[in-house]
Amino acid sequence: MATTDIATRELRKPITVAEYLFRRLHEVGVRSVHGVPGDYNLAALDYLPKCGLHWVGNCNELNAGYAADGYARVNGIGALITTFGVGELSALNAVAGSYSEFVPIVHIVGQPGTKSQKDGMLLHHTLGNGDFDVFAKMSAGISCTLGRLNETLEAATLIDNAIRECWIRSRPVYISLPTDMIAKQIEGDRLDKPLDISLPQNDPEKEDYVVDVVLKYLHAAKKPVILVDACAIRHRVLDEVHDLMEASGLPTFVAPMGKGAVDETRPNYGGVYAGTGSNAGVREQVESSDLILSIGAIKSDFNTSGFSYHIGQLNTIDFHSTFVRVRYSEYPDINMKGVLRKVIQKMGAVNAAPVPHLSNTIPEAEQSSGNLEITHDWLWPSVGQWLKENDIVITETGTANFGIWETRFPANVTAISQVLWGSIGYSVGACQGAALAAKELGNRRTVLFVGDGSLQLTVQELSTMIRNNLNPIIFVICNNGYTIERYIHGWDEEYNDIQPWDIKGLPTVFGAQDKYKGYKVTTRDELRQLFANEEFASAPFLQLVELHMPRDDAPAALKITAEAAATRNK
Amino acid sequence: MATTDIATRELRKPITVAEYLFRRLHEVGVRSVHGVPGDYNLAALDYLPKCGLHWVGNCNELNAGYAADGYARVNGIGALITTFGVGELSALNAVAGSYSEFVPIVHIVGQPGTKSQKDGMLLHHTLGNGDFDVFAKMSAGISCTLGRLNETLEAATLIDNAIRECWIRSRPVYISLPTDMIAKQIEGDRLDKPLDISLPQNDPEKEDYVVDVVLKYLHAAKKPVILVDACAIRHRVLDEVHDLMEASGLPTFVAPMGKGAVDETRPNYGGVYAGTGSNAGVREQVESSDLILSIGAIKSDFNTSGFSYHIGQLNTIDFHSTFVRVRYSEYPDINMKGVLRKVIQKMGAVNAAPVPHLSNTIPEAEQSSGNLEITHDWLWPSVGQWLKENDIVITETGTANFGIWETRFPANVTAISQVLWGSIGYSVGACQGAALAAKELGNRRTVLFVGDGSLQLTVQELSTMIRNNLNPIIFVICNNGYTIERYIHGWDEEYNDIQPWDIKGLPTVFGAQDKYKGYKVTTRDELRQLFANEEFASAPFLQLVELHMPRDDAPAALKITAEAAATRNK
Repeated sequence: MATTDIATRELRKPITVAEYLFRRLHEVGVRSVHGVPGDYNLAALDYLPKCGLHWVGNCNELNAGYAADGYARVNGIGALITTFGVGELSALNAVAGSYSEFVPIVHIVGQPGTKSQKDGMLLHHTLGNGDFDVFAKMSAGISCTLGRLNETLEAATLIDNAIRECWIRSRPVYISLPTDMIAKQIEGDRLDKPLDISLPQNDPEKEDYVVDVVLKYLHAAKKPVILVDACAIRHRVLDEVHDLMEASGLPTFVAPMGKGAVDETRPNYGGVYAGTGSNAGVREQVESSDLILSIGAIKSDFNTSGFSYHIGQLNTIDFHSTFVRVRYSEYPDINMKGVLRKVIQKMGAVNAAPVPHLSNTIPEAEQSSGNLEITHDWLWPSVGQWLKENDIVITETGTANFGIWETRFPANVTAISQVLWGSIGYSVGACQGAALAAKELGNRRTVLFVGDGSLQLTVQELSTMIRNNLNPIIFVICNNGYTIERYIHGWDEEYNDIQPWDIKGLPTVFGAQDKYKGYKVTTRDELRQLFANEEFASAPFLQLVELHMPRDDAPAALKITAEAAATRNK
Repeated sequence: MATTDIATRELRKPITVAEYLFRRLHEVGVRSVHGVPGDYNLAALDYLPKCGLHWVGNCNELNAGYAADGYARVNGIGALITTFGVGELSALNAVAGSYSEFVPIVHIVGQPGTKSQKDGMLLHHTLGNGDFDVFAKMSAGISCTLGRLNETLEAATLIDNAIRECWIRSRPVYISLPTDMIAKQIEGDRLDKPLDISLPQNDPEKEDYVVDVVLKYLHAAKKPVILVDACAIRHRVLDEVHDLMEASGLPTFVAPMGKGAVDETRPNYGGVYAGTGSNAGVREQVESSDLILSIGAIKSDFNTSGFSYHIGQLNTIDFHSTFVRVRYSEYPDINMKGVLRKVIQKMGAVNAAPVPHLSNTIPEAEQSSGNLEITHDWLWPSVGQWLKENDIVITETGTANFGIWETRFPANVTAISQVLWGSIGYSVGACQGAALAAKELGNRRTVLFVGDGSLQLTVQELSTMIRNNLNPIIFVICNNGYTIERYIHGWDEEYNDIQPWDIKGLPTVFGAQDKYKGYKVTTRDELRQLFANEEFASAPFLQLVELHMPRDDAPAALKITAEAAATRNK
């Protein structure tokens, strides 16, 4: 006790470890923390309110992880609190998704006390073998750093380092907080100085060199284009992207994971490029280009319609957060942000071809209206006609996240989807987190498209939306099961079927009371009427729409991608 | 192609890898496989029906893992199929629980094809870094072996070895099955010889030596008792336990995790020993004993009312699956099964004290009936009066799995609870698996007690019960949130509250139609009437009972254990 007292007396501004951690989270922009209470984290939760943090209280940890991810995609960064063993492992799939897709999440795990750990006690939530490191090790492969707060001396440094790494590398970090560390006092005067989360500057000489190389090829190119992908969003270069679009006038396209990165109302926006699954006309324009400025690419199977890009590396400059590659020349340890900014400044005139205007037009074959069933070809452009500026649009892995390629967005729409990680059920949790971030940031609508199969994995997060007074508009595509799987394998197999639910009735049993309205839509006319309904569009409370569609219909891009996956699986 | 043909021609009884695997699963007793379809496992699922295996089709992988665990606890062994990355990680918490609590689960993970893995392709469900081993490594710490079926030559050996390890060590194993391996041909004539899953025999000389030591102390003891715990169930020595009870007449007690191991109608059964949380009178008898034959102990915090055992090691003989310990003398590499059998045979007369008869009597203070609210002290003996022979009783971590210590079981009741791992929500998935195993094995009732907080984590598995025509009786203890957490920390804190649901209405929205009946019970009289209802007791379809109880009431043993946890956390 004596040493503790002395240590405390020497602190200039004593603060508990928990409060230090939560104040830093608040400082970098976190306002709500997702998670589930557990006895190893309960005492920490007490410190949230005084640090200005709202506790969401999810129904389970996987959903909480998805929600933290969705929250981070809107808010910039998110946080998740789970309990040792049981809680943290339940969240691993969600955290791995954030790692895979570059989403910054601070995952805080409440642990047994340090003494219990040292003594190897046979506690609940352990494997019974005295190993208290096994779960942190499981998280190591999906975290950019582990900050294990086992002693007061290094706690603040570990916290600062973890949050900084999380932000800069835009990936999850893991912080373990033993119960006896929560209320331990540490030096708080570090908090007077804001955490430095600025990007390290590029070496100026190297940056200039790379910029000159880029400009040399750019000026020589006859038909250059810009192709924007996920890492442009995740590594925060959208200002640079828009300035480059503006200054160059170059035709600009997005990969599916880059959807929402670019203001689609700009005249030089040309649509989605995804190889054989591209928007009409886009493929020809991109693949005939002699220089593609590729910003933040993730060339995964589902992002390229099954690796169907036809772009030569000799025609490509790749901009990334840690390197730039011009044709085959690699320039490591350089961040695209500084390079793009200087390219914009020094660029001058380039050969900018015109881009055909792309709007939300229904394909001719689908233009008959009335009592017809809702097809994907009809649906997605129609959705684009209904969306509003600043909307947040979440699409589940399945028909929805392929369909959205055919939706032209109004300005400032944020699109959320998990194209690379592709964990079904993600979108429901993500919708909760996104809607909460939207509410905190101002008045943005959150719109979710999820299938009836995927909804089943994470359905209880509807309850968390209700509990937190969130007002998303949720479209559930009712097509009797896992249509994306059918296209890959097992067309009529029972394993691709699901138990039929009363989907519209779900929010009611989850306690929505009068703060909910449900709809059932089976024809194009019905959906048109709903889209024209102003009360519906104003999103006054949680709304859920059963969108009944044919089981076997899918967006064209999904069909192509699924066929490629099926072939590769053989 | 030529090599493949030659290889195939040389096979005496060619069989696909998937079929070989599934036939071995069937052989060791698996009849239903839990899991969720995903594109990397779909083609494997095609082989289930022809191997006599039923596909359950769970709503998500965590629930599927819990269900496989519940199934295994009734059936002897269970199996789970998930897909690479997203699916397998979602199931990790459940698999870790099976590892912690010695439940044999074969976890089969559908993976991308071996060529895609070798090429490090940027596929969906990956971290985008070309590392296809990262997820298997995460499972390594919670599996007794990894069988990675990457080539035909060793596939059968790996499968046989994994299933054997799973059974013998009674813990999960991980089998990865790349898509291109599913339909590869291997030699099938190994299947003509049943898989040897028998326990290795003990060294006879060593076994005799240990038996003699045990008998020496047993014969010298004046007041010996038997204490049965979880590993007696999990390592399959219940026949030996009952024969020992019968032959010796010794007072026999169970630890909470050993509940259900012993026929509680036998005259020498004395109740639950858990230190300060023991059944009335039990503590005195056990702790005054001069020799405790402790069979399969797991002395974890929640199994001992917070480490409140007062048993000296000098008075203890510990029987385990891999060693025996007599006082402080350890005898490694010896299985208790053979030792116990020989002890029974050679034992002769021992000093067997009488055991006070323990029945399901309501404590005096709680005996007033009528319109009173339902308390835990009243509930659990009342449940014991209603239970029937052969029932399966599942209790969630929380008030229920402490309350059940006060329930005296009829004969052949199987009790399922996760006292060591303690993952809330487990019991709902486990109930689905247990009810399915019960249905396959004959006509046993499955009865679940779960709290309203825990139910929220895994609620959609009610849908899987309905889809599979299962008839469990589910009591949901409605006490407004996480009562076990309140007893540890945060009595009135919002983080221990939950969103109120219409619980009785849940099965209806999950499509139960007329194969469901819900009840709401708030008084003792109402529950008595329900217990007297023969149609209810006959479990003709899924039934769910809202059991409304005071928020702040808990079983005495929970109060003691929670207080110990709270103290340890500080």
